Amino acid sequence: MSTFGSQFRVTTYGESHCASVGCIIDGCPPGLQLTAADIQVQLSRRRPGQSNLTTPRDEKDLVHIQSGIEHSVTLGTPIALLVKNEDQRPKDYTETDLYPRPSHADYTYLEKYGIKASSGGGRSSARETIGRVAAGAIAEKYLRQAHGVEIVAFVSSVGKVNIPSSVGGHAASHEDDDDVEDALTPEFRKLLSTVTRDVVDKQQTRCPHPETAERMVKRILRAKEAQDSIGGTVTCVIRNVPPGLGEPVFDKFEAKLAHAMLSIPATKAFEIGSGFRGTEVPGSKHNDKFVRRPDGRLGTTTNWSGGVQGGITNGEDIYFRVGFKSPATISQPQATAQYDGTEGSLAARGRHDPCVVPRAVPIVEAMASLVVMDMLVQQNGRTATASLLPPITTLPPTMVMPPKAKQIVAGGAPVDGEVAKNE
Amino acid sequence: MSTFGSQFRVTTYGESHCASVGCIIDGCPPGLQLTAADIQVQLSRRRPGQSNLTTPRDEKDLVHIQSGIEHSVTLGTPIALLVKNEDQRPKDYTETDLYPRPSHADYTYLEKYGIKASSGGGRSSARETIGRVAAGAIAEKYLRQAHGVEIVAFVSSVGKVNIPSSVGGHAASHEDDDDVEDALTPEFRKLLSTVTRDVVDKQQTRCPHPETAERMVKRILRAKEAQDSIGGTVTCVIRNVPPGLGEPVFDKFEAKLAHAMLSIPATKAFEIGSGFRGTEVPGSKHNDKFVRRPDGRLGTTTNWSGGVQGGITNGEDIYFRVGFKSPATISQPQATAQYDGTEGSLAARGRHDPCVVPRAVPIVEAMASLVVMDMLVQQNGRTATASLLPPITTLPPTMVMPPKAKQIVAGGAPVDGEVAKNE
Amino acid sequence: MSTFGSQFRVTTYGESHCASVGCIIDGCPPGLQLTAADIQVQLSRRRPGQSNLTTPRDEKDLVHIQSGIEHSVTLGTPIALLVKNEDQRPKDYTETDLYPRPSHADYTYLEKYGIKASSGGGRSSARETIGRVAAGAIAEKYLRQAHGVEIVAFVSSVGKVNIPSSVGGHAASHEDDDDVEDALTPEFRKLLSTVTRDVVDKQQTRCPHPETAERMVKRILRAKEAQDSIGGTVTCVIRNVPPGLGEPVFDKFEAKLAHAMLSIPATKAFEIGSGFRGTEVPGSKHNDKFVRRPDGRLGTTTNWSGGVQGGITNGEDIYFRVGFKSPATISQPQATAQYDGTEGSLAARGRHDPCVVPRAVPIVEAMASLVVMDMLVQQNGRTATASLLPPITTLPPTMVMPPKAKQIVAGGAPVDGEVAKNE
Amino acid sequence: MSTFGSQFRVTTYGESHCASVGCIIDGCPPGLQLTAADIQVQLSRRRPGQSNLTTPRDEKDLVHIQSGIEHSVTLGTPIALLVKNEDQRPKDYTETDLYPRPSHADYTYLEKYGIKASSGGGRSSARETIGRVAAGAIAEKYLRQAHGVEIVAFVSSVGKVNIPSSVGGHAASHEDDDDVEDALTPEFRKLLSTVTRDVVDKQQTRCPHPETAERMVKRILRAKEAQDSIGGTVTCVIRNVPPGLGEPVFDKFEAKLAHAMLSIPATKAFEIGSGFRGTEVPGSKHNDKFVRRPDGRLGTTTNWSGGVQGGITNGEDIYFRVGFKSPATISQPQATAQYDGTEGSLAARGRHDPCVVPRAVPIVEAMASLVVMDMLVQQNGRTATASLLPPITTLPPTMVMPPKAKQIVAGGAPVDGEVAKNE
Repeated sequence: MSTFGSQFRVTTYGESHCASVGCIIDGCPPGLQLTAADIQVQLSRRRPGQSNLTTPRDEKDLVHIQSGIEHSVTLGTPIALLVKNEDQRPKDYTETDLYPRPSHADYTYLEKYGIKASSGGGRSSARETIGRVAAGAIAEKYLRQAHGVEIVAFVSSVGKVNIPSSVGGHAASHEDDDDVEDALTPEFRKLLSTVTRDVVDKQQTRCPHPETAERMVKRILRAKEAQDSIGGTVTCVIRNVPPGLGEPVFDKFEAKLAHAMLSIPATKAFEIGSGFRGTEVPGSKHNDKFVRRPDGRLGTTTNWSGGVQGGITNGEDIYFRVGFKSPATISQPQATAQYDGTEGSLAARGRHDPCVVPRAVPIVEAMASLVVMDMLVQQNGRTATASLLPPITTLPPTMVMPPKAKQIVAGGAPVDGEVAKNE
Repeated sequence: MSTFGSQFRVTTYGESHCASVGCIIDGCPPGLQLTAADIQVQLSRRRPGQSNLTTPRDEKDLVHIQSGIEHSVTLGTPIALLVKNEDQRPKDYTETDLYPRPSHADYTYLEKYGIKASSGGGRSSARETIGRVAAGAIAEKYLRQAHGVEIVAFVSSVGKVNIPSSVGGHAASHEDDDDVEDALTPEFRKLLSTVTRDVVDKQQTRCPHPETAERMVKRILRAKEAQDSIGGTVTCVIRNVPPGLGEPVFDKFEAKLAHAMLSIPATKAFEIGSGFRGTEVPGSKHNDKFVRRPDGRLGTTTNWSGGVQGGITNGEDIYFRVGFKSPATISQPQATAQYDGTEGSLAARGRHDPCVVPRAVPIVEAMASLVVMDMLVQQNGRTATASLLPPITTLPPTMVMPPKAKQIVAGGAPVDGEVAKNE
Repeated sequence: MSTFGSQFRVTTYGESHCASVGCIIDGCPPGLQLTAADIQVQLSRRRPGQSNLTTPRDEKDLVHIQSGIEHSVTLGTPIALLVKNEDQRPKDYTETDLYPRPSHADYTYLEKYGIKASSGGGRSSARETIGRVAAGAIAEKYLRQAHGVEIVAFVSSVGKVNIPSSVGGHAASHEDDDDVEDALTPEFRKLLSTVTRDVVDKQQTRCPHPETAERMVKRILRAKEAQDSIGGTVTCVIRNVPPGLGEPVFDKFEAKLAHAMLSIPATKAFEIGSGFRGTEVPGSKHNDKFVRRPDGRLGTTTNWSGGVQGGITNGEDIYFRVGFKSPATISQPQATAQYDGTEGSLAARGRHDPCVVPRAVPIVEAMASLVVMDMLVQQNGRTATASLLPPITTLPPTMVMPPKAKQIVAGGAPVDGEVAKNE
Repeated sequence: MSTFGSQFRVTTYGESHCASVGCIIDGCPPGLQLTAADIQVQLSRRRPGQSNLTTPRDEKDLVHIQSGIEHSVTLGTPIALLVKNEDQRPKDYTETDLYPRPSHADYTYLEKYGIKASSGGGRSSARETIGRVAAGAIAEKYLRQAHGVEIVAFVSSVGKVNIPSSVGGHAASHEDDDDVEDALTPEFRKLLSTVTRDVVDKQQTRCPHPETAERMVKRILRAKEAQDSIGGTVTCVIRNVPPGLGEPVFDKFEAKLAHAMLSIPATKAFEIGSGFRGTEVPGSKHNDKFVRRPDGRLGTTTNWSGGVQGGITNGEDIYFRVGFKSPATISQPQATAQYDGTEGSLAARGRHDPCVVPRAVPIVEAMASLVVMDMLVQQNGRTATASLLPPITTLPPTMVMPPKAKQIVAGGAPVDGEVAKNE
């Protein structure tokens, strides 16, 4: 269905060419200061027409808040948002009356519903992501205010153009060679711990490594000129997430994150922490050893885990990478069959992104914030509920949390509503 | 929480050292012939002690059916299953009273719950997967009987030992080189379309490529001797899945699949179809062109998509790859801090797998079958409901499914209960 | 949260004085012919200002479809609807800045959220029901087209003014007297089996018994003149529901129905079939004996069960009654405390219904249709899925459905999409 | 499906004649002291064979804890429980091979599943409620420890034998008579505020009004002798529930409560507070006026609302009444049709309760505790999450909760884990 999340929940609606697209956000905490501007900033980063690297479809994508907010403060009730579809050109899509676009959703939607939108991608259009980005902006504002959470995504590769060492360590050499480096080079680790959206947005490709960014521009323009398209990857880091988030077993933190990311159009791959690369590294080197941090809490010396152990956040930086395939809609002719099986050639008209990863950056950030937020509300419910029980005195001391640690994680509900430090 | 699925739903319970582990399966179709033997076969493929490559913990893992079945036929009511925990040696885990094991769930469980199981991994133990495997075996039996679905997983790499070309195409060369091969070499494509569990189980590593399998054995034994561990990847193919499965937007087929796979202990990465590799390939080459198949339906000439387009299955083989990190629990000493921050050295006792991927194979198959089954019931509900409406006569012909195609996918409910061919 | 339903699901938003109220309907079957007019008819029956018995707040309540429909046919994607809040007079509610209205939601919302809408009932306003009524109208259109389902609600009492014998049988006499009549008098049973919306709407009180309706008008006007309010009951009948709907155990048909009805503002009571009255009747009289119906299927001679047995529909008429308390907001002064505990007197301004039951009629119908629709899609998923299994030959014949019955109930998916007769 | 609850969730399994019945409880707060004895006490109150008023089927119903608890403390992981089915006499049910029992689930289960359990009620058996009662006992222990919540249900009527004035006020007289008494007579109000399980259990009918209880015994024995059955009502009070529980709109507190109660086998009616009776009372009398309580918080002078306003608890006693129909299975012959439509006469053998309400008492308590617990965890998640936000300074003071009230309701997480007084 079109709903994501359990306690902080977003339901989206809208096709490429209907009256509007939007969403209802349910479960937003009451008392959050919020205006349309808080949401618009991410919508504008997502919207088409930002540069000559993206689709020329020009949408202002102005958000209209319908409910749930008074005097710029959330009421705790559902927040409905909508963005009008203004620049519709259904005529562009007439070829698709006859042809299902290869690797697009045309054919499978028809298989699924027995009917399809008369033009364009319908519900599979990237315009559907507007609701996600808007909802994510709200979650993110809460997380920043309450926990100082920072979520920054950026383009780590376009085609074969990669930020150096972004996938960690040296390349696989002989299979008996265990002398691996860290999953993250010191440079890349530093990038993850310091990168900001400002730095990312300085490049139209949203790659924060300027030299690589330039090569990415060239790669994208080459695809554009060839009426072709090219894929890429987006890496995202989430800093300052409290430990303890993620439900063991089926709803592990990384499982929800993978779910969220693979729900973004055009994604085909996900890895967290050391990812596929980490499968090659022996446990003795891959294990993140514990060490006491200056604030008294336990931290880890390395971070191959990517901030999640046993499906639960451990307080370290969470980082992951998402693979986006090359956009399916291209203008060069393709030899492919019509719906009725007739062989032919399709050259798509319409306006298309030769590469979606720069615009995918705010979408990845939005989905990440939705996952963190939902997990946080769920864990807060558990912690606050458990905290009302009398202390356990009958247990072996090794089974209960050492008092100091407990004080730090307690989390739930500070009396005075201040931002909980060090979480 | 501990529940997976919406319409075909499994809820698991159990820690490493409690009375039993098991699950309740809700939503199983009535009228399915089912005995304990149908379930036991996959549990036995998962159980420890199968070879000298796996943990010597010896569990018979015999399944006891509690409900939902009479005269070897399902009633449609919840099926409860349990497997007793017999070979418990809690003494093995005393070091973990003081030390959180690096990259294990000890620390994060304590952060989450404020309390932890007195010994072993508790709920994070791999014994939790017994419930999944049992439930998956039931789903799988239905899928095989009703649609001829075949689900086969196998080990595609251990450490740096890979099945040749299993990740597709030639290695990345110059970044301006677009002259890529198919994501799948002809050999690997053939493997995917023909591999069976019998072939897989001929190797104790569950790698169906004998020469590679031998090298994997060596790699695992080398880890074992070094009191170390090593990771790997599991590739899985699902054949004969009907088109139309997967809910657009948040519950895309690959999103649910990624969720399912990343919920398996020790997983860090997922890719479907061409995956990360596909991000480097231009759309003109990556797009799977349509062609009329002998049965009249549309198929694709290539399958970079991995059987899913726009989040919905298209009837082609679904294949994906899952990355498992090296097991965290190793016997060699690790310099790491105790719960209270004291520096020290931990050498885990207990019985541990030096490599989990061979035993992960039936778990991957189980989670895959749970995803397909849940999506299928949901889609059947939609199709059957829509099928009762009067035919649409007012629509432009390009919006509705051509009659022929419709006849094939109709799916819902064949009058005579036979296996629907060609789905 | 603000979502109702599992497979046919509505999520509503909106307060009394925000930009708009509305909803997203997810899971609507594709291929349903649908226009705004189909929805408007029920919204207009619900809207205020229909007569001098209801609040003079004048809202046109015109529905605007945002998505999910093209060429007046549903696409299977989410349908978003909105109705603008036009006639806002926030000034009316200034007293409630100081006073929580007795028996209203003012106090409890503040307890729940720590913040409240600046004026009026906010989310607790009856305007929230607009989304339900709109969604219900869509469900209802499907049910009517696919199964000939008829849902008719009407006012059965206002204050102490009752339709004669609407609660069934003679009044309780001596406690040892078992000589009870049927739960339904022949007259009332006839009313249930024949009443239509046209007949109901002929009375401004929506009571289809003209003589009673007149007395109801008087009763409401007496309340209005006294600046007071009065409650009442709504009875609803659902005809032609297929047998087999309702999930045993927690989601019994009547449990979902009770849930749906008690979620309507101002409701305090629910009974199905013989209800509270039936608790006084011995099983030998209360049991609905089976009899072969002309169409060959089993029916019952009486219908104390109200069409539901063991939580599952049996194909007989479903009827139930819902109790609405007197509206809390009244204009006469009430001695009550302010938020800070100060004693005082509150005389509510604003525009209020002296009696809500006439306008509640379409809301009850809407919630009833949402329950039936959701249960139907769920059951269709089960039936269609089970129908693909090979026939069971190993079972004792008494365990499987006799072929004849099976043919009739099969339900799932008639090949030609015609309305299934007699379901 | 067979799952109830969102954050505190129980999934049950089991038929009347399978190996065991039981449940998995997910979301139990960690750190709760819990032993089998805590659960057994309610199971024993539920079990058959307690007196000559109930079925002679003799089950010890001993609970076996499978998981989730160590050293008598909950771990926060799923708690699985099972009770063996020991005293099975499937032979008793042979008539039902031919006849669907009137008003029982035999017919509808067959319609739903196309297959039925070979004997007895299968999943519709009252043994299914064992899982609910066990889960409820756990929820209840938490609620008692953390909030001092008291849940007491009792039999308020059997057939026409009622506790005097238990349904409140004088009987309806002339329809223009508004001079109503309180919904609750002072005697009944006192009963609600003081009744305990000890007092209830002194009577084998579980009616705490001794004189009425005696007449109930006679009524039940009269039904038993006539090989007949009789219904009744159960009233339940929940004391000390914190204000703020219940999700506005669809998941109002009373909606979930009605859902829970109507999911109990044989229930047909539900009312909260003044219920149906309250529909006859003008708002000016029905409204519960606010008054400052000794502890500074707002309370109400009357309690027609039954502790819930706008779908949210207000801190007053919650009370409600549930109607149970007469048991369907009776030994006297009934003229009814066989499955194939053949007319005949069915005299059920087997062991049956002539009246279920005494044994229904702990089931009603269990379902009530499940509703409160689930709502509490959900609200705790909201409150704890909102509490981390900076204080709102920009809002009109009438929109935010006065500080004093806030301090009292804060709820979430007292630092020292003591029982929060006055909640």
